[in-house]
Amino acid sequence: MSGVPALSIVAAVSGTGKTTLLEKLIAELTRRGLRVGAVKNDAHRFQIDHAGKDTWRFTQAGARATAIVSGEQYALIQKTETRKDLLAVLELLEDVDIILVEGFKAGPLPRIEVVRRARGDAIVSDRDLLLAVATDIPDLTADKPCFALDDAAGIAEFIIARFISPSVPRFSPPPQP
Amino acid sequence: MSGVPALSIVAAVSGTGKTTLLEKLIAELTRRGLRVGAVKNDAHRFQIDHAGKDTWRFTQAGARATAIVSGEQYALIQKTETRKDLLAVLELLEDVDIILVEGFKAGPLPRIEVVRRARGDAIVSDRDLLLAVATDIPDLTADKPCFALDDAAGIAEFIIARFISPSVPRFSPPPQP
Repeated sequence: MSGVPALSIVAAVSGTGKTTLLEKLIAELTRRGLRVGAVKNDAHRFQIDHAGKDTWRFTQAGARATAIVSGEQYALIQKTETRKDLLAVLELLEDVDIILVEGFKAGPLPRIEVVRRARGDAIVSDRDLLLAVATDIPDLTADKPCFALDDAAGIAEFIIARFISPSVPRFSPPPQP
Repeated sequence: MSGVPALSIVAAVSGTGKTTLLEKLIAELTRRGLRVGAVKNDAHRFQIDHAGKDTWRFTQAGARATAIVSGEQYALIQKTETRKDLLAVLELLEDVDIILVEGFKAGPLPRIEVVRRARGDAIVSDRDLLLAVATDIPDLTADKPCFALDDAAGIAEFIIARFISPSVPRFSPPPQP
């Protein structure tokens, strides 16, 4: 899906709370009527399918690519020789207004950096790509907007102001549980 | 991935063993050096992700599309308003020589029909699309090649003869466990 704004949530090291922040941002943006895509850049081998399910059986049997389609969603598991270009993965996402990427520090996307005191106070992002910082250090010095690490609502509003044109139609999200 | 041959494994009713046959065909074709894509056309709501995993958390938070990328595979879970066109899903599969689809009886793909005595002996496929029958009824009358339901090797050879040009390069599959 070309032309959809995308940004990444990065941190110098693991254990800063990127995943939790991203999860909260998805909820905040969704609550505001936006359709959010989320991409995780994984360092490990992931196992997304359930043992014993048909798609799992197909993959175990040797399928290089396995897809499943139902009336409300579809899923694809694709084996690759080398890591799939993340920007090409972004193109696969459909019907979204914005895409949030966890990680992809070496990539070209604008980013919000998470800085957690317990994991160090250095900001490692290229300043040309850095949009804002989310941190639990109240007096952190950064030449960019700083948000409290738990201020997902504030960061969501910042993202909307920065990336979403007022002309983007907002759908009515389902009621939050 | 345009131009990749695709066929479906269909049956008049459920419980005939389509999934098991498809699983065996994937293994037989893979063993013969082909790269196989597999697609399941699902009538139900499927849950492909593991509760508690990051991608699951993103989807639970409201993401319309969630992807994960590692060095050896990537996965995408895409919510849709209506059932995604299955032929469009086939286009998403990469690096495969042939695609096997479970179900999709109403679709335009050539097909092998599974007929299991315990579930009835009628062949329901349009004869123009029907390539062969896999059945446990030895004397089933069909004007197409009939294979024993457990003859995955024979059916795999039939598929290769029918769909795979001798010029398709075969990769060396990993040793089977």
